[in-house]
Order: sequence, then structure tokens, then C-alpha cells
Amino acid sequence: MPDRGFPSEEFRTRITRLQAAMAEAGETALLLTSQADIFYTTGFLTRFWESPARPWFVIIPVQGDPIAVIPSIGADLMSKTWLTDIRTWDAPFPGDDGLSLLSQTLADLVPETGTIGLPMGLETHLRMPLADYHQLTQNLAPRRFVDATNTVQRTREIKSDGEVAKIRAACAIADRAFSRITEYASENTTHGQVFRDFQRILLEEGADWVSYTAGGAGQGGYGDVISPAGDERLTAGDVLMLDTGAVLDGYFCDFDRNFAITRADDAAKRAYDQLYQATDHVLATLRPGHKASDVHAMFVDSLTKQGATPGGGRLGHGLGVTLTEWPSFTPYDHTELRAGMVLTLEPGVEIAPGLFQVHEENIVLRDNGPELLSTRAAATLPILR
Amino acid sequence: MPDRGFPSEEFRTRITRLQAAMAEAGETALLLTSQADIFYTTGFLTRFWESPARPWFVIIPVQGDPIAVIPSIGADLMSKTWLTDIRTWDAPFPGDDGLSLLSQTLADLVPETGTIGLPMGLETHLRMPLADYHQLTQNLAPRRFVDATNTVQRTREIKSDGEVAKIRAACAIADRAFSRITEYASENTTHGQVFRDFQRILLEEGADWVSYTAGGAGQGGYGDVISPAGDERLTAGDVLMLDTGAVLDGYFCDFDRNFAITRADDAAKRAYDQLYQATDHVLATLRPGHKASDVHAMFVDSLTKQGATPGGGRLGHGLGVTLTEWPSFTPYDHTELRAGMVLTLEPGVEIAPGLFQVHEENIVLRDNGPELLSTRAAATLPILR
Repeated sequence: MPDRGFPSEEFRTRITRLQAAMAEAGETALLLTSQADIFYTTGFLTRFWESPARPWFVIIPVQGDPIAVIPSIGADLMSKTWLTDIRTWDAPFPGDDGLSLLSQTLADLVPETGTIGLPMGLETHLRMPLADYHQLTQNLAPRRFVDATNTVQRTREIKSDGEVAKIRAACAIADRAFSRITEYASENTTHGQVFRDFQRILLEEGADWVSYTAGGAGQGGYGDVISPAGDERLTAGDVLMLDTGAVLDGYFCDFDRNFAITRADDAAKRAYDQLYQATDHVLATLRPGHKASDVHAMFVDSLTKQGATPGGGRLGHGLGVTLTEWPSFTPYDHTELRAGMVLTLEPGVEIAPGLFQVHEENIVLRDNGPELLSTRAAATLPILR
Repeated sequence: MPDRGFPSEEFRTRITRLQAAMAEAGETALLLTSQADIFYTTGFLTRFWESPARPWFVIIPVQGDPIAVIPSIGADLMSKTWLTDIRTWDAPFPGDDGLSLLSQTLADLVPETGTIGLPMGLETHLRMPLADYHQLTQNLAPRRFVDATNTVQRTREIKSDGEVAKIRAACAIADRAFSRITEYASENTTHGQVFRDFQRILLEEGADWVSYTAGGAGQGGYGDVISPAGDERLTAGDVLMLDTGAVLDGYFCDFDRNFAITRADDAAKRAYDQLYQATDHVLATLRPGHKASDVHAMFVDSLTKQGATPGGGRLGHGLGVTLTEWPSFTPYDHTELRAGMVLTLEPGVEIAPGLFQVHEENIVLRDNGPELLSTRAAATLPILR
């Protein structure tokens, strides 16, 4: 297991990279409100974000150190990070839930001609009450709020060696949990029990917590893969897919595995093989400089040549401090892929109308191509007898 | 265990109540974007929200049935809910991620003189990209967007019998996990191992997933209660507190328990007793018609009379489809407490500067006072020998 946390130099490097991007974009300060952005810049790690009660703010000036403007309940934990400028208020406080403190802090940092960058684009959310944001923009006028999605995403998407090590360790936890599949999935087990046991075993194998599990099971494949598990039982001929975002020290894995129950029909075996070959094709072909849309095309090309019908939706995405990060392997996302990006390769095939199989691996993109972070899936569909 | 889901009449009742509040507030339609609001109005339950990639929308017209405007990956699951009007797009789609479909749907429903309600207040977040929201308000002008926090919160805060049954069952899962404490906490166990095992046992006891665990441990009490667990070991004289938000069928419990390791000093026992007595005082005193701030005063009054120093922050809150809901038991929140509210009672005492103990129970407020949903904590500090 990698050491917990990061040395403060890691955060200084991240801030330096952010500040270079800010300077280029003409942003005087960056206002961060999300769990992911605040964890990335400070190391502040807590499950307390599960409570929607309180907003949290971190400000990155274009020069100088970050400032945390946070509820006092977080002061102790934030003081254990590398940050030294921590300003607090007693939240929740109706009528002024940190707003005047935040306004004053930003007003002192940003001249009236300056701009405040805030992520506003695809895959971002403003984690503060919208009415407070409206008030904030009024308090700070004539300073302008601008979209800083590019600043944040182009910085966060390149992972350091330390980050890759944590994602690799999260993947290893899931690898070990999948390798114990015979302990928790067989004919007659309910889907609900499989999902609960899968999470239990992820914890036994070292996950700090399990933020995501999903899956599907049905004869020869599955349809929907986002439903919670019910009381249906696994039956012979089912293909069971389990997918997880297990978390280690704030970093996610995100990959799935397929298993046939007792027996597998030829169509299920063939679909598995097609997905495996398509993934091999991308593993061999993908290089920095390709676009996200190129990866989609590689998958479609390989699957189509094999006579398969590619599954809909995106066929992979970024990964890191959230379960999914940009970019998306769709025909529409032309983000350039660069060395240091951690990505999921997630092709799907439609075996029959509404009947799918999906396959997923996690990689880090290196100068010479993909390096696997998950242990490569079995080359043929495993059958649990 | 209660049956999964709710009959469609339950949702029709919720929508009727929301629509009455909307009519009173003059809102022509309600636009919902959060996991909690969408689950509450539709029953759409999935862990897929963990991915920030895609926005999801549900529109409640002031008359008529809700309309879902969602990514196509959710169409299958949404079609299993009571909703029949489901409109989809292939997300993520850069440049128009559902925005034109949402704009058109709202434009057809809401006349130009109408208003669109959106939760904008305390404890709410807009779960869509801010730039898309700005574009949406322009697309729909001169229709006005107004703050519908009150509409949503006054409706959601009164739980039906079916909702209370689910929260009670979630509490029972945590009760059983706490009752097995000797299996996973004793002198020399690391905090990290205790936290992992606690989650594992919550799953064994029937939790669908464990969205929140927190805790603290230290000699005679603890400081910070939001930090993740580390490699420190439990030692004799520690007080260990574990807190959980375990989820059953989309509903949370949220309560904690304290345990002394091997022995307890008098100050720790006294603090426990003071918190127990203060909770008993509120359990006996609280009635519909009290304000949230009254509960804070009841706790402070009881603790002060006992010679204790009340812990800072809020001393309880609402509970339901998120780990914490409004109101907050602080001096500043004057929300009226009504029968049907599910609440946490969560007093704290400061034993010495920076050294705390907290205590938590879950209740539903009835006409004649609180009804416990958690099994009342032991009357004296349990000592694990």
C-alpha cells in the first residue's frame, strides 16, 4: 500500500501548474467548491461531504498560497493539510452561511478589474446554494466570474506518479475482490446478496470505503447496468457483471468483470471475446496525441470488423479523485489524450436488442502507450461451476 | 425488512403535496436536478449519481404528471418507476448536454409569464453545469427562475409512514452492527481496521451500501470527528465513537455510539451520563410546534444545569433521503418542527478544551412527542474489556 496522503511538495506542484494555467487564462483567483477540487488542491479528505448542509470554499490566487474558507467543524482536519490560511465560520448559519467571509476574502485578493475563475462546464457543479452564488457575484461586482473548467481539467487530468500509485493500489484491491468471486456468486445466490458481499470483500481487501458498485445479470448478458440489485437469483446461463469504484486514500478504481454462472452460451462467449480483442486493439494502438473520439473510433472499428454491434454510450472515460472524470470516449469529445492521463477502456457490445455485455480496464497513458493498472481480465469468459 | 420501493400512490401523494405548495408560491413548474429530489419524486434509485459526468432533470408542472429529461443510459431504470413521460438524450454530449431538450420541455409547459421554481437556498445545490444554467435562463426568458427551497423542503420534511418504516429499518441495521462491537473493536485494533470492519458488518446486517462512516477515538474523548481513520491503535482508556449513515432502499440512518476501551475515566463516564440525561430531557420535552432553535436551547439548558459545557455546532438535524436534512438545531434556525419529521438528536459536551464526546439518536416526531427509531443507547458508557 502506498503511504497515506502526499508530501506538501506534491500540492505545491499542483498549485504551480494551476497558477500557470490561470495566468494564461487571465484568472486572478480560482474559487473551488467541490469535494474533488478541494481534495486535489489541499489533501482535505473526509466523508463529511455526504452531508449537503454546509458549503466549503478554497481560493487559489494566481500568485501565493491557497486560502480555505470553511465551516469551523472542518478547521481541525484542514489544519492537518499543507494549508496555513484557514478562515472559518460557524455553519450552518441561515442568512449568511460563509458568504460575507468569502466575499471579503475574494474582495481583498482580486482587484475590481480582476476575474474570478469558477468551473462552469461539462462534468462540473457549483457546490453552494445558487442564491448565495447570485449574491456573491453582486457583492464582488464589477469583478467578473469566468468559466475556469479548462484551467482545472487540463491540470487535474495529468496524474503524478503518486496519484497513479494510489489508483493502482485501488485497482489491486478490486482485483483481489474479483479473484474471490467463487466465495460470493453462484447459482441461486440473490443479486442483492452478491452486491453486498462484493462490497464486504472489497473492504476486507483494504478499501477505505466503497463509493460505487453496479452490475447486471441475465441470460447470456444484461440490459440496464445502473439499477440496484434486487431479490432475483442467479441462474445457470446468466452472465453476471460486477463493476466497482472502490476508494483508497481518496482515489478510485473503476472497472468491471464478467462471469458466467454454471454454463455459458456461444453468443455470450463470442461477445466476451470480441470485447477482449477490441480492448487489446486499443491497448496496442492508443498513444498520446490521439483524441478521446479516436478511442471511440478504435473500439467501433475493431468490434465492427469482428461482426459485433458496438454498445451505445461512451466507451470509457477519465478516472482519479472521482469515479468518472472527463474526457469521454464518444464521437463528440475531441479532448487530446496526453501522457499521465488515467483512463478507463470500456467497450460494450449489443448481443441482441437490449442485451449487452461490457468490459472494462483501467490504464495510465504513457509516452509509449497504455500501461494497465487493473490486472487484465481473463482471456475467455470465466464460468463459475 | 419493508418491501422495496413504494406504491405509485405514495408518489402521487408527494406530487399532490408539492403541487399545492407550488400553487401557493406561484410556481408554474419545478425543476429538480439533485439525486435526493429526483429520488423523492420518482423513486429513481441508483448509485450512478457518483459519476459527475451527466446532469439529470425532473420537471413537476403545477398540474399534471412529472416529466423526466435524462441521459438515455437511465431510460430503462426510469421506465420502471411510476413516470411515463421520459425524454432522453445521448449524454455526455459537449455543447448541448440535454440543454435544448430541457429548454424546449420547459418552454412548452411554462407560459412566458410563468415562473420556474428551483431550490436555491441553504442545503441545496444545482446539479448541472453553471454555464448551462446561465444558458437555460436565457433560453427561457422572459420566464423567471425563482427560489423553490421552501416548496421542496416543507414537503419533503414530513415523512410518510412508508418512509419512516424504511428509516427505522436502516436504524435497526446499525443497531445490530453496533451490538456486535466486540467483534471488531478492542485494545490494539487500528482505527482503520475498526472503520473497515464496521462497514463490513453493516453490510452483513443488511445495508444496501454504506454512504457514511465517521468516528473518533482518544483518551477520555476525541477532538475532530470528520477525519478518516488512520493507523493509530485503540488503547486502554480511549473512548471510541462510531457514526454511520447506512442506506436501505435509498433511506439513511444517522446515529453514533460510544464505547470505552478496557477502562473509562470518571470524566468520560460523567460526560456520557450528561449527554444521556440531556437526550432524555429532549425526548420527554419536544413537541410539534417547537422550533429547531428550541431544541438547541433544551440541550444547552439541560447540559448547563448538569455542569457540562455544551459542544459547539449544531446539536441535531433532519434525516431521510440524504444523510442530513434541514432543519439544524442551532440558535439561528427557527424552522417549525411538525409531526412526521424525522430528526437526529445529537448533543455534544466539551470535556476539556478540544476534547469532546457526542451522542446521537434518531426519532420521528409524533403528535405526542418523539418516537425513537434507533434503539436507545446504553444508559452508561459501555466498556469493552
